[in-house]
Amino acid sequence: MAKNSLPHEKVLRIGIAGLGTVAQGLLTLLVENAERITRQAGMPIEVVRIASRSAKPEVDVGKAVFDTNLESLLHDDVDVVVELIGGVDAARELISSALTRGKPIVTANKAVLAEHANEWFSGDAILGIEASVAGGIPIMSTLKSGLSGNRVDWLVGIINGTCNYILTAMDEQGTSFADALKEAQDLGYAEADPGFDVDGVDAAQKLALLAALAFDIPVSMDDMYIEGISGVTVEDLRYARELGFRIRHVGIARRNEEKFETRVHPSLISATNLVGDVAGVANAVIVGANAIGSILLVGPGAGGLPTASAVLSDLIEIARGTYPRLRIGQNEGIRVPVAATESRYYLNIPAADRPGVFGEIGDILRRGGISIEAVIQKREAIRKTDGESWVPIVMVTERVVEASMDDALSHLSSLESVRGQIRRIRVADFDR
Amino acid sequence: MAKNSLPHEKVLRIGIAGLGTVAQGLLTLLVENAERITRQAGMPIEVVRIASRSAKPEVDVGKAVFDTNLESLLHDDVDVVVELIGGVDAARELISSALTRGKPIVTANKAVLAEHANEWFSGDAILGIEASVAGGIPIMSTLKSGLSGNRVDWLVGIINGTCNYILTAMDEQGTSFADALKEAQDLGYAEADPGFDVDGVDAAQKLALLAALAFDIPVSMDDMYIEGISGVTVEDLRYARELGFRIRHVGIARRNEEKFETRVHPSLISATNLVGDVAGVANAVIVGANAIGSILLVGPGAGGLPTASAVLSDLIEIARGTYPRLRIGQNEGIRVPVAATESRYYLNIPAADRPGVFGEIGDILRRGGISIEAVIQKREAIRKTDGESWVPIVMVTERVVEASMDDALSHLSSLESVRGQIRRIRVADFDR
Repeated sequence: MAKNSLPHEKVLRIGIAGLGTVAQGLLTLLVENAERITRQAGMPIEVVRIASRSAKPEVDVGKAVFDTNLESLLHDDVDVVVELIGGVDAARELISSALTRGKPIVTANKAVLAEHANEWFSGDAILGIEASVAGGIPIMSTLKSGLSGNRVDWLVGIINGTCNYILTAMDEQGTSFADALKEAQDLGYAEADPGFDVDGVDAAQKLALLAALAFDIPVSMDDMYIEGISGVTVEDLRYARELGFRIRHVGIARRNEEKFETRVHPSLISATNLVGDVAGVANAVIVGANAIGSILLVGPGAGGLPTASAVLSDLIEIARGTYPRLRIGQNEGIRVPVAATESRYYLNIPAADRPGVFGEIGDILRRGGISIEAVIQKREAIRKTDGESWVPIVMVTERVVEASMDDALSHLSSLESVRGQIRRIRVADFDR
Repeated sequence: MAKNSLPHEKVLRIGIAGLGTVAQGLLTLLVENAERITRQAGMPIEVVRIASRSAKPEVDVGKAVFDTNLESLLHDDVDVVVELIGGVDAARELISSALTRGKPIVTANKAVLAEHANEWFSGDAILGIEASVAGGIPIMSTLKSGLSGNRVDWLVGIINGTCNYILTAMDEQGTSFADALKEAQDLGYAEADPGFDVDGVDAAQKLALLAALAFDIPVSMDDMYIEGISGVTVEDLRYARELGFRIRHVGIARRNEEKFETRVHPSLISATNLVGDVAGVANAVIVGANAIGSILLVGPGAGGLPTASAVLSDLIEIARGTYPRLRIGQNEGIRVPVAATESRYYLNIPAADRPGVFGEIGDILRRGGISIEAVIQKREAIRKTDGESWVPIVMVTERVVEASMDDALSHLSSLESVRGQIRRIRVADFDR
């Protein structure tokens, strides 16, 4: 308990690494919300040092001492280091150095945490991580404190705003993936190199952290299934709506006794589910647990001020002496590969438009033990390619183990009557 | 900081007052989730005493010592008291006695907190209140920690599940208020004497606590406007839908510089707003603050297990030594009476069906500086009473100060052409 005590004279002196959007947001809030922060923390929070490897700070650093050497933040005059440089190598070194010296550090850096958190959480160190996932939504605090008396069973999160923006635009305006991506880039919601977001890596790193806090298991991307949104078409979004679903890119973590599955992929979500209505760059996390049933949190997943708000909530808890020791990794956490997980599936099968084809497809599914729950095949969807007519057969299956589905899909793909690639999207089933 | 330390030998020994639904939920969770709780708390939580004024416990109290005297919980062998008896007088005495002895106490009792919290929060005492509002939703934790670095500007909450259940049933099934109430009673969602819920008192007590945590102001129901749902009709719900709204019973707390308004009443909420989709007995709170913009939390607002989950989260924070000192009352908190607040309004005016009436009404509104934003008057809505035709004129006004609206309404009511009572429902405008 004494670990939380800090040597200070009624001021929390912080040193900030980085001068990007989040750091600037933090500097703004420390001035604008000074009264509330001092009241909540029980003392003022003062920036005494700022370090950034770019030579000259373009922003006003006030009375803080500026240095291009990150190690300057480890001086004795800094009570807590705030790591906002991003990237892995330099951030890792800074975090390790701070923790080795027993200096609390707060970070917004999911990438470095996804790779190295386990080495850090085994000790007594205070490492604040609220800002690393879902920006201004206090999801880490909810998992580490609000639901601490629950056995968490699952969570589903819209945790990448770029993907959600693109899918919402495709869904609502019928824009193609390429055009929606371009629009997101123009608005600053997507990077020039969008792969990190649209391929699901960003969401995967966040999911690894969420799962660790939810289940007390180590942070790990081993055996995590990761799929981006580039394979989703406007056609899929339309069929999904017709079938009573939305398509969202989500991270899913689920417990089955003491085994855990983690996966990141586009998912059909029931239109009756509030999460399906979360549009644009917003993030949302829904947590299922044995005492509360489920709770949903929706808010801003990124941005300078929301992320700085999360950094501040950690700093205030540290000032109060109430930042808890996180229980990450105290549970072994056997991972289940995606092939062993169970879902309903949306299938979009481009099939030759001639008698008997539906029967062939049905036969393969039946042999794989896969039941069909709903199916749509439309006269007006018939198209002609190379002189031959074909039509998308769209269906939602009942729950089945993924390995069986993979097997059936490889059989289906080899049918002479199947023209081109079958699209498969998992259905995410959960309450609320 | 040392205030949070507890004398224990690596066990947190608790004494529970009451043996109702929440207490039974707590006993269940302490057994079922023992492993997770011990891990999160850093020590086991053990029930050493249970007290209830009813002579014989019907539930298995395990190894705990049972007593009909609540004072037995103040013995030295109890580290933390859990007050789950409800009501005001005995609960007040128990909480005061515990705090006077420096013994932390956790309560789920909004009624006693709404009346007496201020006397308790001025000291250094640890008084856990997560369970007092919105059951399993960690809204208190979000306000006291997650958003501690924000200036909170407003919050809107669906904080009475009974009202939300009734309004949802009326909206979705067209059931009358009386029938929907009966249904809620049959399902156990409403008490035999439903006044406390449907008249808005329950929501008002919760709002007083939410506002105190959001704004650091004293807990108070002074100058709070309180209105229940018995005046809402199925017709209002239908017109609201047609105008692009839902009707929900909400608590609203809003800051205007250092002045604060708190009010509880049925409200029109835009259909594009996620909160409007929250149906049935669920609760939801949306908080607007200067760093995060807004966040929404949705979950179970009542019930034994969800409320026990909130009690547990406080107990775990106390065991960790990380329960923060709440800042309630550090801000003076000048209250604004409802007459000085501003809203858009839904009006349903039963008017004589003859030429010139609309002009008379429009004239009064215009003289009161009230602009009309939308209006519906339908031929098929014309009805006959006592041989005279009348029709509801339904409108949504632009924003106006409530005192001006009250004034206009009294003029409108005195018109010879207005037949019966004008129904007025405020529009709650906020983001997300």
